[in-house]
Amino acid sequence: MSDQRVLRPTPISGFPEWSPEIRSVEQSWLDHIRTGFERYGFASVETPSVEALDVLMAKGETSQEVYTLHRLQEDAGAGDSSDARLGLHFDLTVPFARYVAQHFNELSFPFKRYQMQRVWRGERPQEGRFREFTQCDVDVINPDQVPLHFDAELPRIVHEVLSGLDLPSWTISVNNRKVLQGFYEGLGIGDPITVIRAVDKLHKIGAEGVREILVEEAGLDSEQASACLRLAEVKSAGTAVVTEVKRLGVHSALLEEGLEELGFVLDSLADLPGGSVMADLSVARGLDYYTGTVYEAAFDDDPGYGSIVAGGRYDDLAGQFIRRRLPGVGISIGLTRIFAKMVAEGRIAPGRSCPTDVLVAVPSAERRAEALRTGAELRGRGINTEVFHQAAKVGKQIQYASRKGIPYVWFPPFEDGKDHEVKDLGSGEQTTADPASWRP
Amino acid sequence: MSDQRVLRPTPISGFPEWSPEIRSVEQSWLDHIRTGFERYGFASVETPSVEALDVLMAKGETSQEVYTLHRLQEDAGAGDSSDARLGLHFDLTVPFARYVAQHFNELSFPFKRYQMQRVWRGERPQEGRFREFTQCDVDVINPDQVPLHFDAELPRIVHEVLSGLDLPSWTISVNNRKVLQGFYEGLGIGDPITVIRAVDKLHKIGAEGVREILVEEAGLDSEQASACLRLAEVKSAGTAVVTEVKRLGVHSALLEEGLEELGFVLDSLADLPGGSVMADLSVARGLDYYTGTVYEAAFDDDPGYGSIVAGGRYDDLAGQFIRRRLPGVGISIGLTRIFAKMVAEGRIAPGRSCPTDVLVAVPSAERRAEALRTGAELRGRGINTEVFHQAAKVGKQIQYASRKGIPYVWFPPFEDGKDHEVKDLGSGEQTTADPASWRP
Repeated sequence: MSDQRVLRPTPISGFPEWSPEIRSVEQSWLDHIRTGFERYGFASVETPSVEALDVLMAKGETSQEVYTLHRLQEDAGAGDSSDARLGLHFDLTVPFARYVAQHFNELSFPFKRYQMQRVWRGERPQEGRFREFTQCDVDVINPDQVPLHFDAELPRIVHEVLSGLDLPSWTISVNNRKVLQGFYEGLGIGDPITVIRAVDKLHKIGAEGVREILVEEAGLDSEQASACLRLAEVKSAGTAVVTEVKRLGVHSALLEEGLEELGFVLDSLADLPGGSVMADLSVARGLDYYTGTVYEAAFDDDPGYGSIVAGGRYDDLAGQFIRRRLPGVGISIGLTRIFAKMVAEGRIAPGRSCPTDVLVAVPSAERRAEALRTGAELRGRGINTEVFHQAAKVGKQIQYASRKGIPYVWFPPFEDGKDHEVKDLGSGEQTTADPASWRP
Repeated sequence: MSDQRVLRPTPISGFPEWSPEIRSVEQSWLDHIRTGFERYGFASVETPSVEALDVLMAKGETSQEVYTLHRLQEDAGAGDSSDARLGLHFDLTVPFARYVAQHFNELSFPFKRYQMQRVWRGERPQEGRFREFTQCDVDVINPDQVPLHFDAELPRIVHEVLSGLDLPSWTISVNNRKVLQGFYEGLGIGDPITVIRAVDKLHKIGAEGVREILVEEAGLDSEQASACLRLAEVKSAGTAVVTEVKRLGVHSALLEEGLEELGFVLDSLADLPGGSVMADLSVARGLDYYTGTVYEAAFDDDPGYGSIVAGGRYDDLAGQFIRRRLPGVGISIGLTRIFAKMVAEGRIAPGRSCPTDVLVAVPSAERRAEALRTGAELRGRGINTEVFHQAAKVGKQIQYASRKGIPYVWFPPFEDGKDHEVKDLGSGEQTTADPASWRP
């Protein structure tokens, strides 16, 4: 072997992986989130990692981020391109919308699902941006209309789930696309989408940068631009947002509708602790499929890290895949983005390196059978148990347990009829014990 | 919307997805397997879905099955090929070997991990062969040598896990590459690998087909070919296999070593129910990285469906990624292959379409706040609870619960101070209940 070339693997940038101690914490987070979603009655769905490219591109705007699949043989020019039109999904919303349309006749509505899967984006990796990451989504899709009640329930679920994860403080910001679009229409602006895109850059390029785009690219006059910027500055802890926007003196039917929806959502969440949910009129969300309520959350002390929660209402997405109206609303927790930051900042206390509760020692080859029986008995009672992999000095076996963080070492009797003993490595105490009744 | 093109999505062949009722069963299987693996002290590891192509190709033989990733922009000739050398992993063994070599200094050995992830193969889909599927692996890697005890423990774990899944009967076949290679060497055959590959096709092309390859391609004489075929016919319920092989009168040091290992493994598993583990000398496993013990399991009544469990010992795989000897042994449950067959044959009783235990009815908009409080109280006590999404006639709400398989409908009092009531949709019985103490 020593004459072989050694192929030293290096980490692949943007594709995180964790040590067993960190992975065990990540798994506990995933279990916590899953339990939280099920507590509200959402059903688990998983979709393939790939979708047809035309499904992924149904809204067209994320083309540059999609990874397509090719067979290695194809690269070498071997032909068969049957997979050529497949891409890895870049979120879980588009696959879910496709799923509901495709299985429409088999589902009960309103269809409420959660989905916790990896997604991929062919982006340049940077802080908080990964090329492979796990998202945890809850969504509701219903034919014809989705009751606004769900727009209010989703941030509540996320609030509850995140509150159980011991994170630095965060705020869920809520807005409504209809408020933005209706306000711009009320100002007599013909192309509200361009304005939404410009205002979405507020935190990146500042008010003067946005004003420049509004005036020079979107063709707004100075007064219109100022009104748009004033709207984006509105931030409020509750339904006061409605009054604040109305005070700006702009009117349109769509604006009224949006304000009513936004007010309903904020009102429904008024019982949550102060500051956890805010109206923020600068939030627009980049994805084209949002049509009403939008959500976004960030860490209060590091808003520039990017959104850790995102979502909104998409009234026209699933309908593209079936000939009927199929609106939806959903919210997504950026698990990897949150978790990676906590790991990088040393805020994750490493978990155990293995799930073993008890190591059964094997002092001699002759006693292995007895050790195996003991191990089986403990396992049968739901205790995670390893039997040491070889006969060895007891000190070596205790050392192994201690290195792996296994809390107990079990000693089967040296001869039949004698007592079992168990050593608590934490206290150092060793006592007799019965494998039929002992509990860690 | 009606004037838009409707993009009717169709299933993508080889990429399975399940209804919520089936998915909930799959999730319970995954939980069962995870618990089983942890019961034996294996730690969870996940690796990225991609590896560098040179890592995937370290053993060279699966090139035609690998999916490589490309950014959509690249396809259009836009340049940047920084991802060009990434492929989706085709199994979990190669990524794990790479993981251990890369993180060698951070791990405690023997390192025992389980890994349950999707893998991808760019194969033509057919019965039992998917392009995306989930594998559930347990492996042990240790520097210098892995005690043979692990070769025996892994099939025991799989036996225990599969026994809990209510499957039609299956058999785990065990063999040892050293027995095959040692036997061929003892016959004076210069190229045992070619013979192993030919004999591996026995079940596909039959004894005459294998004989033809052995004589015409591998250059064996007729007597050598007959001996190889006799070896492949050996099948035995226990350590009798050692006697049977010895009776064939071939000798070599490697053969002796292999028989000793195979005998040890079978002897260690002798307590398992008859027929669940067998020695089968025709089992070779296609993958080049196996060096000793090999495992394979199939359904007894449909062996042609393909292996549902596979694995073996790979003494030289992880060592390729680090300058030291790093042998391993592992076994993999082909979850999707097993599950898909059970689904196709109607052997999976559909689970519930949602995890909701209780639907809290909202008889009028005025009583929504009371319904929300009741829902929160029940959830706080660990009961999965939905509050109906709108005020509606009670009959409609009961119908919704019944359609979704929700077992209980809760009625908050129509006015404060009155009793709550709960209806058991199974029995039709309706009784008063206290949200602070009621249990489903």
